[in-house]
Amino acid sequence: MNETSEPAEPVPADPRDDEARVARALLAIAARPPLVHCLTNIVVAGFTANVLLALGASPAMVENTEEAAPFAAMAGAVLVNLGTLSGERAAAMRLAATSARAHHVPWVLDPVAVGALAHRSALAVELLDARPSIIRGNGSEIQALARAAGATSAADGAGGGGRGVDSLAGSDEAIDAAGALACARGCVVAVSGATDYITDGTRTVAVAGGHPMMTQVTGMGCALGAVMAAAIAVDDDAQRAAVAASAVFATAGQRAAPGATGPGSFAVAFIDHLAMLSRSSQPDG
Amino acid sequence: MNETSEPAEPVPADPRDDEARVARALLAIAARPPLVHCLTNIVVAGFTANVLLALGASPAMVENTEEAAPFAAMAGAVLVNLGTLSGERAAAMRLAATSARAHHVPWVLDPVAVGALAHRSALAVELLDARPSIIRGNGSEIQALARAAGATSAADGAGGGGRGVDSLAGSDEAIDAAGALACARGCVVAVSGATDYITDGTRTVAVAGGHPMMTQVTGMGCALGAVMAAAIAVDDDAQRAAVAASAVFATAGQRAAPGATGPGSFAVAFIDHLAMLSRSSQPDG
Amino acid sequence: MNETSEPAEPVPADPRDDEARVARALLAIAARPPLVHCLTNIVVAGFTANVLLALGASPAMVENTEEAAPFAAMAGAVLVNLGTLSGERAAAMRLAATSARAHHVPWVLDPVAVGALAHRSALAVELLDARPSIIRGNGSEIQALARAAGATSAADGAGGGGRGVDSLAGSDEAIDAAGALACARGCVVAVSGATDYITDGTRTVAVAGGHPMMTQVTGMGCALGAVMAAAIAVDDDAQRAAVAASAVFATAGQRAAPGATGPGSFAVAFIDHLAMLSRSSQPDG
Repeated sequence: MNETSEPAEPVPADPRDDEARVARALLAIAARPPLVHCLTNIVVAGFTANVLLALGASPAMVENTEEAAPFAAMAGAVLVNLGTLSGERAAAMRLAATSARAHHVPWVLDPVAVGALAHRSALAVELLDARPSIIRGNGSEIQALARAAGATSAADGAGGGGRGVDSLAGSDEAIDAAGALACARGCVVAVSGATDYITDGTRTVAVAGGHPMMTQVTGMGCALGAVMAAAIAVDDDAQRAAVAASAVFATAGQRAAPGATGPGSFAVAFIDHLAMLSRSSQPDG
Repeated sequence: MNETSEPAEPVPADPRDDEARVARALLAIAARPPLVHCLTNIVVAGFTANVLLALGASPAMVENTEEAAPFAAMAGAVLVNLGTLSGERAAAMRLAATSARAHHVPWVLDPVAVGALAHRSALAVELLDARPSIIRGNGSEIQALARAAGATSAADGAGGGGRGVDSLAGSDEAIDAAGALACARGCVVAVSGATDYITDGTRTVAVAGGHPMMTQVTGMGCALGAVMAAAIAVDDDAQRAAVAASAVFATAGQRAAPGATGPGSFAVAFIDHLAMLSRSSQPDG
Repeated sequence: MNETSEPAEPVPADPRDDEARVARALLAIAARPPLVHCLTNIVVAGFTANVLLALGASPAMVENTEEAAPFAAMAGAVLVNLGTLSGERAAAMRLAATSARAHHVPWVLDPVAVGALAHRSALAVELLDARPSIIRGNGSEIQALARAAGATSAADGAGGGGRGVDSLAGSDEAIDAAGALACARGCVVAVSGATDYITDGTRTVAVAGGHPMMTQVTGMGCALGAVMAAAIAVDDDAQRAAVAASAVFATAGQRAAPGATGPGSFAVAFIDHLAMLSRSSQPDG
């Protein structure tokens, strides 16, 4: 990863920086395990919980209107992931995000499929008022959300709108939109792809690595958003937290791939390598 | 698999036909990855997504009433699976099926647990009006749906009604009901079991193979319905698509079993083998 | 495991008793596979189903208000797990529990996160009126439910209230609360932890074993509740059923750990070992 003041020209990272940052973040998560309140979708809820548990964090999925607000107030961080949206979950998301903001609990917005569907885009824009610390999405989602939030205009050219939950834009194509969104909303924006870009609007950090097989396992991006929430629960610097989470995923993906014979065994090995990374970051690891 | 004009007497398949058909279907799915809009259940959503991703298809679970209709209209195919039914998901299913029909998007109905529960049977019959291209279920579900839809009568003798989500009838016992249902509703009906039978009411194709361990992994049948949706998104012939999907599953199941020590490792290997089958079907595979 | 009339002093088990009990329970489940009606959460539904299938039981997740009551009436046992509560699922839980009681179908209550959230505690107490046969939770959940149900008082000192879904109390700290709750409600209470304690209020059985990696896999406790439901469906003695289920999990956990490189491969091996335990308990195993 690398930091630069030119959002449009992030440069490759120094691997040694990566390792040190990843180790610091993993140590912090395991040392005082954050309670991560996840409002997420039925496809990835189990995988997300297992990813957080592998890192020593404490996931809890609470998504009804009676409990979402009080639970967000007691969490270390909140994840709001718009996949498999339902009426009740959407209402709970509004309550959780508002409560998080009111109680100074950092929260992460994952605008799944925003752009493809107007209803969801409107909800995402509404949620922005509760000021997420980090927004994480793929290229299409970030382009679409930036436009829907008024941070960019259609005249800026970006296509916007993925196809379902897949991105039609490379992460590099969304760097400008990410920067504009970050500036407009005062948050960190992370664009996931072959290379991840994490920007606060002035500095953009690129995290390369990972493995193509990560795109063949459902919930990789969603779980990354959850790990960003875990990281920001223990580190006030949202960009550093998001970068560390991306680097953790990239490293685990690279290590899991060689022994995998396909996406099934890759997903299993990915969880194992997350736990190994976490353990090796500990003083007695 | 084998085709015959006598629905009641499907005969064993020629394995070489199988391989060619499977390869053609997998190639088509990977070549222009279909967006498969899944309205499915909380038990199998993750596994279903991973199965579709392993084959190169693009799953998206959208199940709320605001988005189901517009999303179905833009999908390559729609899967409506009645497991873990909720009030909102049922309403979304009606909208998605109706939208799919209106926009000429093929869709697959998986009538989970129909027969055991009157409420669900009524919904399944109602959904039939939106004309699914393929109905996939186990023997009990197909018998029960055929009766509930008026395609067969109780006097036909078939017990109908499984126990929960399990079939009390062998797939072969439901061949007649499947044929009657296919004729009455002008669709393809696939009965899953030790041998799968896929009929359009005049021709019945039998797909043998698979492995008994497939019954010990949750969501195998549900994911098969999703793959039928992926296949029909890229092949107008519903019966050919359903047969290819069944053959893909049978082949992957057979290949995954020898290395598995139980249903946990079998499920992982099954995903791996789906991806390997898909890759080997490609020109550069 | 060991039985004693002194709830506060359970002693280590004789491994040979363990094995015989486990084998008997597994044989009974596989011999007449119980239909286990699960109302559970989106995080663990898939894992729970795979655990039950590995043991030969027949899971079915039915959680809507139209079907919950009639389905509970036809089930062998019902599991009510309060995770990822939603409005509709909560209503269905009330119907299922009431129906189970009316039809003499045994049911298991898993009070996930009770104590941390007042809304959930109130629902759990309300559900107690439908008289579960077994209550299974971690130390914090059992302490909190015992207090909420009036079985213990705040003056008893137990902290009550976990942090999210994690326990802040060791299972041994909740033995007294479990005993009081069991006496007050006439049911068996199982406290999960490094050692599991299962009490009917007079006798307390301790089941040691398992492996620390079990805490790094989401849904282990939830799936244990489901296996308790499967066991009580085929054994009228609730305590014996709960103990057998705990011992099955402890044994599978111990056997799965040595070959696992992390929680991902551990979870896979755990399912495999459940199936192997079940098979080896059969006469022809």
